Order: sequence, then C-alpha cells, then structure tokens
Amino acid sequence: MKVLWIFAHPEQRSLNASLMREGLSELAGSGHESRVSDLYAMGWKAVLDASDVRAHAPSGGRAGPSAAPPAAPSGPGRRLAVGAAQERAYLRGGQSEDISSEQQKLLWADTLILHFPLWWFGPPAILKGWLDRVLVQGFAFGLRGSDGRALRYGEGGLAGRRALVVTSVGARESSFGPRGIHGHIRQVLWPLLHGTFWYTGMAPHEPFVVYGADRLTEAGHRTYARELRERLRGLPEEEPLPYRSERGGDYGEELTLQPWIAPDGAGLDVHEMFPAAVPRR
Amino acid sequence: MKVLWIFAHPEQRSLNASLMREGLSELAGSGHESRVSDLYAMGWKAVLDASDVRAHAPSGGRAGPSAAPPAAPSGPGRRLAVGAAQERAYLRGGQSEDISSEQQKLLWADTLILHFPLWWFGPPAILKGWLDRVLVQGFAFGLRGSDGRALRYGEGGLAGRRALVVTSVGARESSFGPRGIHGHIRQVLWPLLHGTFWYTGMAPHEPFVVYGADRLTEAGHRTYARELRERLRGLPEEEPLPYRSERGGDYGEELTLQPWIAPDGAGLDVHEMFPAAVPRR
Repeated sequence: MKVLWIFAHPEQRSLNASLMREGLSELAGSGHESRVSDLYAMGWKAVLDASDVRAHAPSGGRAGPSAAPPAAPSGPGRRLAVGAAQERAYLRGGQSEDISSEQQKLLWADTLILHFPLWWFGPPAILKGWLDRVLVQGFAFGLRGSDGRALRYGEGGLAGRRALVVTSVGARESSFGPRGIHGHIRQVLWPLLHGTFWYTGMAPHEPFVVYGADRLTEAGHRTYARELRERLRGLPEEEPLPYRSERGGDYGEELTLQPWIAPDGAGLDVHEMFPAAVPRR
Repeated sequence: MKVLWIFAHPEQRSLNASLMREGLSELAGSGHESRVSDLYAMGWKAVLDASDVRAHAPSGGRAGPSAAPPAAPSGPGRRLAVGAAQERAYLRGGQSEDISSEQQKLLWADTLILHFPLWWFGPPAILKGWLDRVLVQGFAFGLRGSDGRALRYGEGGLAGRRALVVTSVGARESSFGPRGIHGHIRQVLWPLLHGTFWYTGMAPHEPFVVYGADRLTEAGHRTYARELRERLRGLPEEEPLPYRSERGGDYGEELTLQPWIAPDGAGLDVHEMFPAAVPRR
C-alpha cells in the first residue's frame, strides 16, 4: 500500500500520537510505503478563504491537470463563489501551495487514513479544514461520466483508493453501538464515510475506534495498538463498507432510493447493500 | 428572544449573508434582541491548541463560575490533555479572551443560531473550531446532577436554550429526504443537532435548509427569505425535535436504548420519541 496518514491531534505525547507511531511502524515492517501529514505540526491553515484561490494570482499559471487558460485576474471586488473559485484555481494553477501539496500526496496514495480524536462527534477543525481546502471541485468531485451524469458515490476523482478513519472517544463502546445513545458510530461518522470518502469515489472501511480513551490503562493501550497493527495488516484484503453506488441503479432520477429497495426503510442504513463484514474485537 | 447568531461564510455578498440580514431585520422588527458572531469577519481562530488554555497564564485568575484555586503554572513541557485542560482554564480564568467572550454571549442568549453553508456534510472548519474551542468541559457539558449522573442530552450547561441550524446546500431537496442519497438532512446533521445542541441541554429545532443554493433564482431567494422570516416569527412557539432524554428512563446503564423501546429498531431515528411536527414548505 501507499498510505497517506493525516493526523490531527495537538499533543505529540497523546495516546493517538503513540498509536500512529505503532501504525507507521507496522506499515514499514510489512513493506508498505507511507507519508504523514501531521496537521498541527505543519501549522496547517484550517480556514478556507479567498487567499486560498487568489494568493497565487495566475499569470500564465502553474501547469494544472487541464489545459485551461489562465484565470482572469480577480481583485478583492470580485464575489467569492467558493466551489467555482476553488475549481478555477485548481485547473488554472491559482491554488495556495499547501493545498496543491496535499493533493499531490493524495494522488500518490492508494490508501487514506484520517486519524483524530472525535470532538463534537466529528473531526477537529484543523482536519475539517483539510477537507474543505484540499478536496476541491474538479479534483475530488464535480467530474462527469460519458453519460453526462455526475461521478459520485463510488466514482469520482479519488476512486481506486481505500479510506479508513482511526479515532478515539471518551465513551464506552456500547454507547456508540446500534442502539447506543450517541448514535451508531458508522452513522455518526456518515459525513466522513459516506459524504466524503464514498462521495469522492474512495472505498470507506469500518472505522477503527478507541473507546474509553480517557480512562485507558497501559494494558488497554497495548491491546488497541495490537489491534491497530492487525487491522492495518489485513487492510489490503478487507472488504469496504457496502454503500450503494449512485449510478448502479439503486437510485432514481430524484436521487432517492428506488421504491422497491427496502420499501419500509428510512435512515442511513438503507444506503448499505447488506450488513458489512466487520472485524470484531 | 435573545438570539446569538453565529455566521460562518467567507463572502459578505453571499446568499447566506443576505439571508442573515433578512433574519436579523425580522428579529429586530419583532422586538427580539440579537447579537452576531460573524466568524470570518472576526478573524476567528479555528484551531484549538495549547495557546487557548495557556496564553493567559493565571496568577490569581479572573473570577470564574467556580471558586477553584488558580491553576498551577503549566509550561510547554506539560502534556496537553485537551478536555481537562479546557475545563481547568475555564474554571480558573486561564482561557483566551476570544473564548470567554463567546461563552458570555452564549450565557446571555436564549436562542442559538448556527448559520453556514454545508461543506462536506458539516459546518465549515471555522465554525467547527468555534464548537471545539467555546463549548468546553465544565461550561457546556461535564456537569453532574444530584444523583451523580452526567447532565447530558436534554440537560447540561446550556439547558433552557433553543438552537437552530440555518444552512444551504447545492443539492435538491429530495436528495436530502428520508430516502435521499445524501442521507436525511436531520441524520446528516446528527453531530450538531443531537451531539452538540441536545448533548449540552439545548433544544434542537428542525433545521432551516436552502436547497439548490447554487442555482437559486431571484424569486427563489425571495421565497427562502420569506420562509426564514416566518420560521423566526414562529420559533418561540415551535416544538423542538423530540429527542429522548438521557435520564428520562429510555436508556439503561450501558447507555443503550431499553430493550422495550423500538425493539426492532436501529438507526438514528430510534432516538426520537415520535415523528417531529415539522413546518413544511
């Protein structure tokens, strides 16, 4: 594998940092390549703003993946339409360097790992900002097939890659189970697993979750480290989550599930084809 | 109402900025008070880091809500345990001023509005960072009742307030419906509605969503502006989403739903008591 490991924790002596070192050591030992974006250590800029798409005002432009002409100069008087401005900057070489650099890493990788403590049931702002700024229209999504339909959910700019969330929560495992008060972890992480990974064509895998992270003993930590190593060893052969493809026939013109599929179902699980084969602890 | 309106869009000439002005005008016209945190305009710091809890090293400390003694000096050599460090800084007057200021606004308000374009099925990083940095342990959560149980999900530091998401998406409404490919909007927004609002004791209301935002006509815009005004006018009388309370008897010791509640159900909707009375367009 060629693994891009995105790490978002402010403390290098944290449980999560230690787990990442274990994971990277396992990958190296198994002959896999890896690159790390340690967002806090890099001082990653979290906030998407006009400077992302204007800072490097194109004059002839860097070579982009498309032969589009350089963008017209855009002064501060021009209204920022975020998605379109990002796409224009991507295609015409007007992006900030830090964004292009992360995109290059993604193109290199066949496996993306997002590793973070779960804050407010989602990624820390610095990681959310990595998604907001790096996964731009024209690069990760917004592409169309020969039939003119959008390439999304199973297809897209990042197709052919697998993606894994590694996260830690303070709560116990039962509270993130299918009937747990916090919501089932797969559904809590829906915006990442389905809305980001699958949306851009990546194959989302069952998240690796450290429960009870605030109260973890040394032995508990060793157990999770061993389990993470095992997960990574098996990852190349592991089945991803069985989300439905947008163009596979399960959705109609209104982008709703066809009436004959799970006719009485609502809720996020109707978008899975069958219960996933999940490695259990 | 006393409304705190948190706005997170980089462009002051956006559809969303225009909608906010409509909303604020409606509130003023109806005799409500409002305060605005326009995060981009404020240059809000999105990334939670050690400087949030160490910058104002306490020496005697500001008066906190608790009479805890000033924190021990904590140099850069001390390991950052995020939640505990935030709580200590909150209780002992060691928070950054920008954080305390937002907390004061929240304490003033009886209504919180989070207003943002939906990026990767969640709030932009700058708004995620507002949640990460402002809603700290000891202030918004981490409190206990007289029975020793955590005050969460219907109770908590922000109880007694209502909370509303106002957001915009490019997609059409059907694709965010109960069987839409993007997931039902209430479940997509679960981390905010249930995991943040309800978790801290606030009453979450049905989100106000602008669909097809990229293709909106002038007439469509006027329709949404009118609907937002109507929503705000009716908000004081509106029923919130009927999520279950943690201490109301529906959850057992393992923080899972009692077996007699929706016995065949899984998925996020089992955490609602009955279908919400939703204002329909």
